[in-house]
Amino acid sequence: MSNPEHFLLSVENGIATVSLDRPERKNPLTFDSYAELRDWFRGLVYDDDIKVVVFGPNGGNFSSGGDVHDIIGPLTKMNMKELLAFTRMTGDLVKAMLHCGKPIIAAVDGICAGAGAIIAMASDLRIATPEAKTAFLFNRVGLAGCDMGACAILPRLIGQGRAAELLYLGRSMSAEEGHAWGFFNRVVSADALMSEAQDMAARIASGPGFANMMTKTMLAQEWSMTLDQAIEAEAQAQAICMQGQDFTRAYNAFVKKERPVFEGD
Amino acid sequence: MSNPEHFLLSVENGIATVSLDRPERKNPLTFDSYAELRDWFRGLVYDDDIKVVVFGPNGGNFSSGGDVHDIIGPLTKMNMKELLAFTRMTGDLVKAMLHCGKPIIAAVDGICAGAGAIIAMASDLRIATPEAKTAFLFNRVGLAGCDMGACAILPRLIGQGRAAELLYLGRSMSAEEGHAWGFFNRVVSADALMSEAQDMAARIASGPGFANMMTKTMLAQEWSMTLDQAIEAEAQAQAICMQGQDFTRAYNAFVKKERPVFEGD
Amino acid sequence: MSNPEHFLLSVENGIATVSLDRPERKNPLTFDSYAELRDWFRGLVYDDDIKVVVFGPNGGNFSSGGDVHDIIGPLTKMNMKELLAFTRMTGDLVKAMLHCGKPIIAAVDGICAGAGAIIAMASDLRIATPEAKTAFLFNRVGLAGCDMGACAILPRLIGQGRAAELLYLGRSMSAEEGHAWGFFNRVVSADALMSEAQDMAARIASGPGFANMMTKTMLAQEWSMTLDQAIEAEAQAQAICMQGQDFTRAYNAFVKKERPVFEGD
Repeated sequence: MSNPEHFLLSVENGIATVSLDRPERKNPLTFDSYAELRDWFRGLVYDDDIKVVVFGPNGGNFSSGGDVHDIIGPLTKMNMKELLAFTRMTGDLVKAMLHCGKPIIAAVDGICAGAGAIIAMASDLRIATPEAKTAFLFNRVGLAGCDMGACAILPRLIGQGRAAELLYLGRSMSAEEGHAWGFFNRVVSADALMSEAQDMAARIASGPGFANMMTKTMLAQEWSMTLDQAIEAEAQAQAICMQGQDFTRAYNAFVKKERPVFEGD
Repeated sequence: MSNPEHFLLSVENGIATVSLDRPERKNPLTFDSYAELRDWFRGLVYDDDIKVVVFGPNGGNFSSGGDVHDIIGPLTKMNMKELLAFTRMTGDLVKAMLHCGKPIIAAVDGICAGAGAIIAMASDLRIATPEAKTAFLFNRVGLAGCDMGACAILPRLIGQGRAAELLYLGRSMSAEEGHAWGFFNRVVSADALMSEAQDMAARIASGPGFANMMTKTMLAQEWSMTLDQAIEAEAQAQAICMQGQDFTRAYNAFVKKERPVFEGD
Repeated sequence: MSNPEHFLLSVENGIATVSLDRPERKNPLTFDSYAELRDWFRGLVYDDDIKVVVFGPNGGNFSSGGDVHDIIGPLTKMNMKELLAFTRMTGDLVKAMLHCGKPIIAAVDGICAGAGAIIAMASDLRIATPEAKTAFLFNRVGLAGCDMGACAILPRLIGQGRAAELLYLGRSMSAEEGHAWGFFNRVVSADALMSEAQDMAARIASGPGFANMMTKTMLAQEWSMTLDQAIEAEAQAQAICMQGQDFTRAYNAFVKKERPVFEGD
């Protein structure tokens, strides 16, 4: 999977940089790129060389979502079995992102719409340019806002009322709104977008990889636990991390007044 | 139910406009208006002519909540069976609003207190005037903040810490706070309140009604699902919508470079 | 438990003021103070004299978290049984805070890190000074962000995306960020911190204590209920409160145009 056919991938210093590759059409998703992204994120679980993923734009846009000609047209002709196979494949991409074990940073510029907005939403962290226009525009194509987890995840990012507005109106969220509402962690100029994302990625990549995987696991795992279940689950998860070498490395470095060098075990 | 006795109702262009009707007392709720509103929202599920509801103010105030003389006095004399029948009836109003299948826009001016604040909270979208004072004031009448779903819903709208403050102090939330915190989607002058609400309602009413119903259903349905359950639930719900005619209408309009006209099936 | 050995405690007018007591080291937690705080919060359930808790700073800092020498060093040498006993004890402190039945106000100044940040997070309300630096810095010591409930509670306070940033980067949240994001309810100067916290505590202490306990219970209890379950649970909980004397006191005071005096039953 190091040479995907339907999206761009480069790996350097433990950071995988991914983007869609049809900039002339604002990077729509196709059946092929959906499936290949799903498979790549699924494989990431077993890849110790990649510590963080940056999902970036291409040619000034993040993604325009499902391609109208390649995807929406065919969907209008499918039977229920085929439709469910499609919606499950798109949902599987989100599941694969949530369960890949590595933090994902979405670096969003320009158009970020439909399934593109979902990819940003399903990432762990998000950086935008002022030009980013993020639209959960499903109801503008006659569909419901419940696409690939949006009715569950978007409210937890920006609040239930703001999420409802975006899903019922299908309107764009500006970068400024997204930042004020907690969707975007940072807004930087288009010039600085990828260096900011790479800096953040490098900072996370230099952290304790096994522990970061556990953080990601538990953020998803505790989503609908009771409070007491979550606290017990964290007691177990953190006890596992306390037997890791990175914990001892941090302690030893502290005693020597040095900066810890984490190795991810 | 097109001529309710205990609240005002008008229906035009698929938009039902509702308000309480005792403006001289800031529109308190009574046993009768609670029950009639509950029944009306329950019936809405089967009413294809109404696509959106606007719940508005009357005489400059939204609602002062449960009437002190008509409701609170009698409650202090009831036995547990009667009390539970009352609290279940008020909860049933919220359930009926959540399950009515049509987006509800609360247009809030002036006093919005107690059960009035709950009606705003249980709506899907909220617009306020700068004069709106929203108070979950239950503890000021000796009661708990857990009224009609407030301890579940308010934290998801404005965050757990801000909700706790409002519920423990019983203090008013200003329109400005409500906007910054995500309770209000918009703040407009009192002059513009109803036209803004009607504009938003018209925009939603012109959208795909069946799909909007599914969005509303899933926003409630996924409330406490796991992430993977929510993603599977959305795969099913969206596949249902993809067999709808509004999806095909949107695609056909796109191909013809026209604006889609949705019919709600 | 009125004279704890490992933390400071004073009780006046129904308000317990608590702080850690090693200001020269920024108030780190030790095995002993963890255990004693857990036991004290557990006992609070049965203490009718205390209505509200203020957890404050000492010497300009809230808490630096688990002591590096007293806790982190020994942990690096423990086996899994011992580690799990420790992480469960720290989780039990959070559970005891959540289930103690009295609102807790964290008054945060200076360093508020690791388990210190967790204590602030697990409180009901939070006031900060501009100098407060709150850091969920677990990954900087090689551990995961899932510590004492952070992956469950922090996202509900500030949003899933901001919580992810703090947990993956381990960076400090400023008082200004914390206020904008809903972590802090208020920011006041260091001079005013304790009087502001005491004022808020006094306001809550003068409220209906039994009903406030029920609010606290239900905010935790409904955490992962479905919406319909939460509404039924509140119907029951509020019916219980409606048979309380404080409800009748409030009604009688209203009729007499007086201010109600609550007695907590």
